[in-house]
Amino acid sequence: MANFGGHAIPGTFFLFYGFWLTVKYVLQHYWRTMQLKGRMVMPPFFKKMDYFEGGFQIFASFVGIMVEQFVVDGPHARLYDRETQEWVKLMNWQHSTMYLFFGISGISLVVCTLLKKIPAGVDRVALSLALFVEGFLFYHHLHGRELLDAHIHSLLLVAVFCGSASIMLEVFMRNNVILELFGAGMFILQGSWFYQVGFVLYPLNGDMWDLKLHTNVMFITMCFCWHLAAALLLVTCTVSAVWFTLMRFSVKGRNVEIGMRDASPKSSSQKALLEESDEE
Amino acid sequence: MANFGGHAIPGTFFLFYGFWLTVKYVLQHYWRTMQLKGRMVMPPFFKKMDYFEGGFQIFASFVGIMVEQFVVDGPHARLYDRETQEWVKLMNWQHSTMYLFFGISGISLVVCTLLKKIPAGVDRVALSLALFVEGFLFYHHLHGRELLDAHIHSLLLVAVFCGSASIMLEVFMRNNVILELFGAGMFILQGSWFYQVGFVLYPLNGDMWDLKLHTNVMFITMCFCWHLAAALLLVTCTVSAVWFTLMRFSVKGRNVEIGMRDASPKSSSQKALLEESDEE
Amino acid sequence: MANFGGHAIPGTFFLFYGFWLTVKYVLQHYWRTMQLKGRMVMPPFFKKMDYFEGGFQIFASFVGIMVEQFVVDGPHARLYDRETQEWVKLMNWQHSTMYLFFGISGISLVVCTLLKKIPAGVDRVALSLALFVEGFLFYHHLHGRELLDAHIHSLLLVAVFCGSASIMLEVFMRNNVILELFGAGMFILQGSWFYQVGFVLYPLNGDMWDLKLHTNVMFITMCFCWHLAAALLLVTCTVSAVWFTLMRFSVKGRNVEIGMRDASPKSSSQKALLEESDEE
Amino acid sequence: MANFGGHAIPGTFFLFYGFWLTVKYVLQHYWRTMQLKGRMVMPPFFKKMDYFEGGFQIFASFVGIMVEQFVVDGPHARLYDRETQEWVKLMNWQHSTMYLFFGISGISLVVCTLLKKIPAGVDRVALSLALFVEGFLFYHHLHGRELLDAHIHSLLLVAVFCGSASIMLEVFMRNNVILELFGAGMFILQGSWFYQVGFVLYPLNGDMWDLKLHTNVMFITMCFCWHLAAALLLVTCTVSAVWFTLMRFSVKGRNVEIGMRDASPKSSSQKALLEESDEE
Repeated sequence: MANFGGHAIPGTFFLFYGFWLTVKYVLQHYWRTMQLKGRMVMPPFFKKMDYFEGGFQIFASFVGIMVEQFVVDGPHARLYDRETQEWVKLMNWQHSTMYLFFGISGISLVVCTLLKKIPAGVDRVALSLALFVEGFLFYHHLHGRELLDAHIHSLLLVAVFCGSASIMLEVFMRNNVILELFGAGMFILQGSWFYQVGFVLYPLNGDMWDLKLHTNVMFITMCFCWHLAAALLLVTCTVSAVWFTLMRFSVKGRNVEIGMRDASPKSSSQKALLEESDEE
Repeated sequence: MANFGGHAIPGTFFLFYGFWLTVKYVLQHYWRTMQLKGRMVMPPFFKKMDYFEGGFQIFASFVGIMVEQFVVDGPHARLYDRETQEWVKLMNWQHSTMYLFFGISGISLVVCTLLKKIPAGVDRVALSLALFVEGFLFYHHLHGRELLDAHIHSLLLVAVFCGSASIMLEVFMRNNVILELFGAGMFILQGSWFYQVGFVLYPLNGDMWDLKLHTNVMFITMCFCWHLAAALLLVTCTVSAVWFTLMRFSVKGRNVEIGMRDASPKSSSQKALLEESDEE
Repeated sequence: MANFGGHAIPGTFFLFYGFWLTVKYVLQHYWRTMQLKGRMVMPPFFKKMDYFEGGFQIFASFVGIMVEQFVVDGPHARLYDRETQEWVKLMNWQHSTMYLFFGISGISLVVCTLLKKIPAGVDRVALSLALFVEGFLFYHHLHGRELLDAHIHSLLLVAVFCGSASIMLEVFMRNNVILELFGAGMFILQGSWFYQVGFVLYPLNGDMWDLKLHTNVMFITMCFCWHLAAALLLVTCTVSAVWFTLMRFSVKGRNVEIGMRDASPKSSSQKALLEESDEE
Repeated sequence: MANFGGHAIPGTFFLFYGFWLTVKYVLQHYWRTMQLKGRMVMPPFFKKMDYFEGGFQIFASFVGIMVEQFVVDGPHARLYDRETQEWVKLMNWQHSTMYLFFGISGISLVVCTLLKKIPAGVDRVALSLALFVEGFLFYHHLHGRELLDAHIHSLLLVAVFCGSASIMLEVFMRNNVILELFGAGMFILQGSWFYQVGFVLYPLNGDMWDLKLHTNVMFITMCFCWHLAAALLLVTCTVSAVWFTLMRFSVKGRNVEIGMRDASPKSSSQKALLEESDEE
């Protein structure tokens, strides 16, 4: 993966996953907020989202592992070469391990959605562990690199470990929308930072960065904060867009509903309903 | 900002902000405590305070960014100089980034106050992140400095990160007055320590400190504890002053109220009210 | 203990303890879940489990201390040799200290089960401290070792300290099954990792590992993640097996119960009961 | 304080303070547990304990500061010597600072007990900060010492910071007896460890320890765990002793009470009371 594409692919995945989580959490929060008035019930839709999310995680992890193992210069499922007395392509094995844990996370999400008996939060533990393992492997990966290379990856770890901690907290504080959106924002930050790592270490225009220069380290640190600001902005925009869409649709839906009722003679119970919807 | 003024200005801001927060939190706590007896309702006033606070944060951040960018020897919004192949005035850019996050915090405070639908705590997340970013940039700023210079700034980080953690906790524990005042105290500590940094690194009488002497480091560490004690004292005094003022006014207000009622013939319910206020 | 057996014995113990805890916690969780319907009450069985667990901990710790002290080349309860002016067999003393704390944990578990007045959670504090002391002694044990030796032991510490923190959390969050199973999983991980340490440092086939090679460190880090995945899998399988066994037995038990009732003329309340069991 | 006595005095204080806290917390827990049955109310006694504790803290801190400042070779309230351009007796100033914060803790305890309006927990924040400042000053005190000297003091910090964290937690979880006793145990551990530091650095028999020997470090680490075990044992014994004394006295008191009632003709309500006390 030591090229621009190898950083852009995971970056794209994490960006989309963060975006997906943001949308999902806003929909759930909207439903929880509105549910109090007892109008609409849409859990089947949420279940379908979770099945899709879990299924996609499993599928993508499986493909990822296969690609890492059976790419032309991959290890082809061979771990140790007895002849040269060397480990075979440890980098690919490490990436496979990361994918494995995201796959486990996907399986646990599907199983949690399927079976009601499983205590809420198991899927979050699995997702948090997947991020922890990713950060853990990256952390022991940085040994002996150039200053800027190590620094830019350690900044990635800030996003990874913050996300992992935030999602672990969700196990104990269910349905806290701020925590959920923070976790989603950390995925977006991670995704956009993967792109930044790609741009710096494998610049598209071929202009190599000086990996030892201290001012480069200072700029990259500041740049990470800009990515954080951008991630916050993106989450905010997505939340607002989803929220306003929901508001508009639910108002329309209600008007249609009321219009249909008007055709039939009004009973006292329908009048009460109308009054109720006016009050809201 | 490498002079005394450059440390005195943020110091003054943080001192006043900590003082403002202390007053605001005491007022809110007083209102929450008294509210149980169902007498006075003054949320419009608190909303105005929040609008003012948020608006001032936005304004000050905007001015700060403009000054940092367009001061005579500033970067004038230019980030990279292609000719010399160097980053332009990274220090000013870092300060602009810090201001940016305080601006975001201000915006989120205003929006949170405006819209009821936004879950409580979003403003605290933004303020906590602003402090985190400040500390984060400072931390990666200390590399390669003299012993005392690095130490005195790392003590600043203690106040910054404690404040950030305390405010992040407020997201999950709303309306805990101890936590709120602790956060305010950390702002005051930060403010007074900025002055101390200024006094040590750019002494007004021109007597330079020996930045390599270990006893100086020991003194500065102890001095930080004195600033902490002073911050605690200041918070305590402010809280007491505000509280006693409120007590006196509310007693007076009640007497006036009761006096007005005395003119009309006493009903049994008013007698009960009088007795209630005597008991308090 | 500087041989394979010295790592396999504690490994086996921790593996079995993690397995035992998993089974215990699933049984308790099942009982808590079912208890709501007010059918079966089986606390005496749980008390017996706790007595057995505590008693075994005490017994094993006592045996462990005796073996460490009075083995042929042990310190024989002598701490300091005045003649050679050296500490006698500090390693054995350290292991004895670890056993001592697991013994304390066992005592506190027995006492907590015996006396109702003792606040719930004291046994968890003791178990958490036992793990903390184990990790604490290991941590100050690593000084001056070869790269791979130090690294493989520091990975052990990850499992130990995560387990300690998780069990400490249980003091404040009682009966959270996810937390309990996570703690049990950390014991299993610790157990299996002890085996791995034995295999690497004292290979059975005599093929010594190069303790200075960086790729070995990278492989071991990844291998730790595989052990984590295996521990998760083992916990999941155990939980599923216990749960399905319980479900089958409780359904059978109910059928027998219902069959007995069928002999007598059906009352309306019994019909309701039958319907209730169908719904589940 | 660079002698045995200088470590024995704070050690004695902390030992007694930990012991005092243990007794206080057990009494409070006993009262809270029994209170549910609505028999005895003894808060005035607890208030007196708190006044005494706070008053003693203030008195001892004042004496401590005076002694540190005006002892023969003390700084006599002079901070900087303009002639030699050196700080005067920084060690004494540091100790004075530590005392100051314990004094603040005492003041806050007295004020919290006096005034009901002060939110519960302010006294704990002050005590936690006092421990934090102690640890903070110690931590920046260790620079450039011999291996064993630095290590034995850093172990002290483990007790200090664990105590500080535990007491800070009490702010958010009031009346959790496990947390309270853990905090008290940390004071006892700190006290006994001060003695150990004295014995090692200033041995009474004049046999100096080799401060560079690694086995000494290993022994001291293990020794800290033994102190921890001893502290746990001491807390347990104290708790048991106090609890049994209370049980015996309350049973006697009840018998007397019942005996007095027996003289008067039994009413149905008294019979119920007798039955209630039998059940307990």
